[in-house]
Amino acid sequence: MKEKWYNEAAANEPVAISTRIRLARNLKDAAFPRLLDSIQKREVAEKVLDGFKTAFAERVDEFDIIDMGKLKEEAAYSLVERRLVSQEFAAAGEGGFLILSKDHSVSIMLNEEDHVRIQVLASGLQLENAYTMANQIDDMLNARLEFAYDARLGYLTECPTNLGTGLRASVMLHLPAMLASGSVGRLAETVSRLGFTVRGAYGEGSEVRGGFFQISNQITLGISETNAIDNLSTVVKQIIATEEDERKRLIVQPEVQDRMWRSLGVLRTARLLSGDETVELASNLRLGMACGVFKGEKIDPSAPGKLIALTGPATLTVQSGRKLSAHERDTLRAQTVRSIMNDK
Amino acid sequence: MKEKWYNEAAANEPVAISTRIRLARNLKDAAFPRLLDSIQKREVAEKVLDGFKTAFAERVDEFDIIDMGKLKEEAAYSLVERRLVSQEFAAAGEGGFLILSKDHSVSIMLNEEDHVRIQVLASGLQLENAYTMANQIDDMLNARLEFAYDARLGYLTECPTNLGTGLRASVMLHLPAMLASGSVGRLAETVSRLGFTVRGAYGEGSEVRGGFFQISNQITLGISETNAIDNLSTVVKQIIATEEDERKRLIVQPEVQDRMWRSLGVLRTARLLSGDETVELASNLRLGMACGVFKGEKIDPSAPGKLIALTGPATLTVQSGRKLSAHERDTLRAQTVRSIMNDK
Repeated sequence: MKEKWYNEAAANEPVAISTRIRLARNLKDAAFPRLLDSIQKREVAEKVLDGFKTAFAERVDEFDIIDMGKLKEEAAYSLVERRLVSQEFAAAGEGGFLILSKDHSVSIMLNEEDHVRIQVLASGLQLENAYTMANQIDDMLNARLEFAYDARLGYLTECPTNLGTGLRASVMLHLPAMLASGSVGRLAETVSRLGFTVRGAYGEGSEVRGGFFQISNQITLGISETNAIDNLSTVVKQIIATEEDERKRLIVQPEVQDRMWRSLGVLRTARLLSGDETVELASNLRLGMACGVFKGEKIDPSAPGKLIALTGPATLTVQSGRKLSAHERDTLRAQTVRSIMNDK
Repeated sequence: MKEKWYNEAAANEPVAISTRIRLARNLKDAAFPRLLDSIQKREVAEKVLDGFKTAFAERVDEFDIIDMGKLKEEAAYSLVERRLVSQEFAAAGEGGFLILSKDHSVSIMLNEEDHVRIQVLASGLQLENAYTMANQIDDMLNARLEFAYDARLGYLTECPTNLGTGLRASVMLHLPAMLASGSVGRLAETVSRLGFTVRGAYGEGSEVRGGFFQISNQITLGISETNAIDNLSTVVKQIIATEEDERKRLIVQPEVQDRMWRSLGVLRTARLLSGDETVELASNLRLGMACGVFKGEKIDPSAPGKLIALTGPATLTVQSGRKLSAHERDTLRAQTVRSIMNDK
């Protein structure tokens, strides 16, 4: 089986965790999904799937095609937990289809808010590469399907915030030092004035867990894709530099070193782990590894990523093959965590 | 170097940690130490030391003779932390002498509250053995020295609570399950009616740390040594049975198992450890080991005992050879703990 992109240990960067490019497209001769019943959605999906299969004829075995209407609830939410589909798409069911590459680096949602949402995911900061790949997929589909496009506005989308390029580029960053120092608050203000948004990836508001943040472009109209990506790239690199600078001051504190080490100890031994604690521990592990704290310890370089990707409640339910009580889930989560930590 | 008695791994029992027998004796023709100046104390000590050296002529190299007046404060308190001398004796200084066997199983304090306090320490529940040894030492000294003895009252001591046998027998017990269930409270009431006292070994009152308790006889007058020891032995065995019974209910709880395992993880990794936390962690480790929780893990069987014996503030100061800040001490304690945990 092909390794998932997020398990590629070597690609881990200290601050930038992953990159996502999304392009929103709609067929010219069909109403937006919101206005379609499930039979009409199925017709749209079949049209896109036909186009996809012709366009990707030589690579079709690299992909799974998933009928969301036939997927069990926990399997659908497991896709959300691994950030492969949106919450809304998982909930929509009937008429939704997912084209998912076996390495999970390409995820194309059919009949989400728009007819076609092409997503490309990559580890670290790879905006240009991911955009190039998304663009290729877009071109290949475009050769078989006619997308709704206006010469003045650009690509037409259900929601006006996507109008134009239909592009959303986002980068997941690990900012524990900026969270600890409080500079994350100022960051959110600054970047929003530049047309970007920052939000915590786990937990909300003051409850942000582990210092994981996602930064994305907001502007899609009156800007080229390349400009949007260049701007985001510039801002992200500045944030990375700030975080790395603040880490130097953070990591020399004995209390912080102690926290990193204890997190390693708990990850290796705990028998019960909540989702929130696992995110915190994974954050401490990632920070400790990035800062060279764990001298002499063998730790799978992809462990921090796996700790989060493989321990969501729905993912654990799928793994166990049955409904779990909260307590059983915490037990299975701890077991999964230990097997990740001992997989040296 | 001869191994200290408390490092003898094999002797560890699940509940009974250690036994102590103490005999209080005074020379017939001298006032109690409280009434002596340091020169007079020295005269008493020299008399006893002469008697000891003659009596133990063939085994004299098994002992160290320590002039407490010449001992640095932290070295004296390190003896208290390892329960080899009393707090009062460590503080008294000038005129106090300690005869300490190299394996730390025999500790004879000269000019504590009484002229001679013979102490014998042993791992687990060994009241009879320890009493036999204390009695032998007493007989050997008695052959060379004349102890104050009244045919009706028995041995004369400074404090009336020791009058008669001069015997205090005590057993250190690990009662985490009875502490958790609250039955320790009832225990204290019951045993006090039988003439015994129970007190927490670390921390006071509701702050008792780790469930370590010491139970001792109170009655020394109108009772034979053998009876006092038999009574204590009976009570201790009952407490041990209760604790073992309550452990069966405690240890099946997943939260408790989780706590044992996390304690193991933290002991192996922490970079800062307070004294209180170390006692708690050592307690969890001991309980987990006694209940067979840590399957597949290599842990030095004497680790729980060493974790407490070697991490007191004065003991760490002696180890480092200089005054330590609280922070330095927590760092050195964590380092000492890790070396104990990795000493497989």
